[in-house]
Amino acid sequence: MELSAEAVRRVFETRSVARLATRRAAAPGLVPIVFAYLDGAFWSPVDGKPKASASLARVRDLRASPEATLLLDGWHSDWRRLWWIRVEARGEVFVAESEAAGSDEFIAAASALRRKIPQYAETPLFEGPATLLRLVPLRITSWAASNQSEKWIMEAASDG
Amino acid sequence: MELSAEAVRRVFETRSVARLATRRAAAPGLVPIVFAYLDGAFWSPVDGKPKASASLARVRDLRASPEATLLLDGWHSDWRRLWWIRVEARGEVFVAESEAAGSDEFIAAASALRRKIPQYAETPLFEGPATLLRLVPLRITSWAASNQSEKWIMEAASDG
Repeated sequence: MELSAEAVRRVFETRSVARLATRRAAAPGLVPIVFAYLDGAFWSPVDGKPKASASLARVRDLRASPEATLLLDGWHSDWRRLWWIRVEARGEVFVAESEAAGSDEFIAAASALRRKIPQYAETPLFEGPATLLRLVPLRITSWAASNQSEKWIMEAASDG
Repeated sequence: MELSAEAVRRVFETRSVARLATRRAAAPGLVPIVFAYLDGAFWSPVDGKPKASASLARVRDLRASPEATLLLDGWHSDWRRLWWIRVEARGEVFVAESEAAGSDEFIAAASALRRKIPQYAETPLFEGPATLLRLVPLRITSWAASNQSEKWIMEAASDG
């Protein structure tokens, strides 16, 4: 069973956490990300949370191989409510000297992230050169365990 | 900051949900899975939840290319508690005519899944030929936002 286009859109607009898989030599890269969905694309910042390394693997991966996959899902002990949405996407890395120096769409995406994700009132949205990943969906696949999955999506608050 | 070996072990033993990334031609495969951790390996069933297709993509992917990645993570509105564990693994697919006809380790893994995941009292653990994925860790990487991440792991109940 698939989710309706309305439920998929609601997930994109209300959720702020996804998992991002990228191509990598040894085994796929896989990391949780936060995002805002704007004008049909997912935008995710290289933010000020402490990082494992200064040169982020996800940035290197997307530059070498832009085909990436996003997963959004809902877990519940009642398995009739389970669902997931998988987004095969083309990823791009945008870097600006500063947020204000970015393109109009860069600035709009940064604003959308601040509006959506209250933690950016404390955690810096950018660290070092202002960097955003843009993931443009190429193919969206969804799965729902039952019609309760969709009901749960439409009633739930965000995960923020 | 990395998690301690003790915290990583606790996550493997108490959590039952992970995300699995596999190699695939167009873009990485990515799906939520349930698992039990037994004798140093992750075991995940092709269970009786409704499926998008009879021939599961994750099974095809692992047969064609065994290098896979598992992600376990903790999301919290307090970002000082965030953490993730990424497991690069070698995946194998085990199929038995029935659960009872499986090898000793197959039967032990099926038992561990039933003990760990109460939903299998209602949802069939297997659908069609009894199929388990085994993911043997090759490399484990972890990230913690602060020392509160580890504290949260050691205090939290399971996600079941």
